Amino acid sequence: MEQKLPGIEVCLSPDLLYQHELQNKTVVVVDVLRATSTMCSALFHGVHNIIPVAGIDECLSYKGKENHILAAERDAKTPEGFEYSNSPLLYHNPAVVGKTLVLSTTNGTKILSMVKSDASQVVIGAFVNIDAIATYLLDRKQDIVIACAAWKGRVNMEDSLFAGGLAHRLKEHFNFVDDSVRMMSDLYENINKDLYTYHTKANHFNRLKALGASADFEYCFIENAAPVVPVLHGIYLVKA
Amino acid sequence: MEQKLPGIEVCLSPDLLYQHELQNKTVVVVDVLRATSTMCSALFHGVHNIIPVAGIDECLSYKGKENHILAAERDAKTPEGFEYSNSPLLYHNPAVVGKTLVLSTTNGTKILSMVKSDASQVVIGAFVNIDAIATYLLDRKQDIVIACAAWKGRVNMEDSLFAGGLAHRLKEHFNFVDDSVRMMSDLYENINKDLYTYHTKANHFNRLKALGASADFEYCFIENAAPVVPVLHGIYLVKA
Repeated sequence: MEQKLPGIEVCLSPDLLYQHELQNKTVVVVDVLRATSTMCSALFHGVHNIIPVAGIDECLSYKGKENHILAAERDAKTPEGFEYSNSPLLYHNPAVVGKTLVLSTTNGTKILSMVKSDASQVVIGAFVNIDAIATYLLDRKQDIVIACAAWKGRVNMEDSLFAGGLAHRLKEHFNFVDDSVRMMSDLYENINKDLYTYHTKANHFNRLKALGASADFEYCFIENAAPVVPVLHGIYLVKA
Repeated sequence: MEQKLPGIEVCLSPDLLYQHELQNKTVVVVDVLRATSTMCSALFHGVHNIIPVAGIDECLSYKGKENHILAAERDAKTPEGFEYSNSPLLYHNPAVVGKTLVLSTTNGTKILSMVKSDASQVVIGAFVNIDAIATYLLDRKQDIVIACAAWKGRVNMEDSLFAGGLAHRLKEHFNFVDDSVRMMSDLYENINKDLYTYHTKANHFNRLKALGASADFEYCFIENAAPVVPVLHGIYLVKA
């Protein structure tokens, strides 16, 4: 008799999240450009843990606290008063080792706060940790929702394609629940690993390029550059 | 100097419609399974015009009116009291010639009523009229929004892929505005015309198969089976 496989579904925008049951599921939050890539990079390069926060003010409330570093981003820029930003490359830096990073971003922390109360577990995904996350999910064998941060609600290429890439790695062991997961897995397969070139068509590429963040953009499409599994425990993201 | 091309964007679900400006744009409404395929089929096979209505009761209010035929669908089934349904094959029938079809469907008429007051023009798209619609839009040279009916708000394969197929035909003459249009155009291109086989993976395939509507399903993926351009004029859909 065929064994019932756990399911995998994709939510392409926070505006569609209401369609997905999160109870008893592992939710993978993704905001490739750049929140979740930055979270992976920071933990991989020695940050002890991360406190994702929604607002700039909440972030600033940690100012002066020992061993805490503060980072924020709004509309792809670093607001005044912040030493660190949403650039994953800033954390390739010995000064961050052992620190607690308090991070506020536009879209990434919003979707995180939307899912955290209902999901059985919340993990952080990006191309830079895609194989590590896939292995972790294969071990857990629980139903999965991949929740894309999108851009102000708008479906975007990079988060959708990450969802496809992750689903593609899991397809032998999970049931594809919705049409979004099927389409994105196929599109990822068709791109055949040339993620960087493909994403130079994306709307967000031009936003970041205009801000001089092309190096960030390149980093965010290097699969397995930061092979960690960030898991939400209480208010902290820690390495699994 | 390069001429500015009109834009084309894709709205994958009615829940995302608020993100799109519709003023001064042509909106292509698509509900491949089966509302817009049925509208094309009916007009191609001789129905004089169509009144799309939201509710069953509104549809029934036309009962007994001369030359009117009534059709409705809820959750892919025909409600009691209706002679015609949302099956495109029912209209390959001399009895419908010259008649006014009053049609209520679950998702298709909902998205139509959402866009009609703001758009410059509303046209009806499906695989069965895809080349006719493309030619019509090439002639108009106006910004385009392709509005997918989806399934109770959920992104579906058939409407998304139609959007991709239409965009693919227009890409030399239109600017791709959002990531949804880019991804769907590429996915359509990768499927390389084998639409029927590809869509046997779709969630809605199994719903229709369970209802014995496999022949409808096959018809809806025959490109150019009903080469008409249904345009909304007042309360009527008529051939352009």
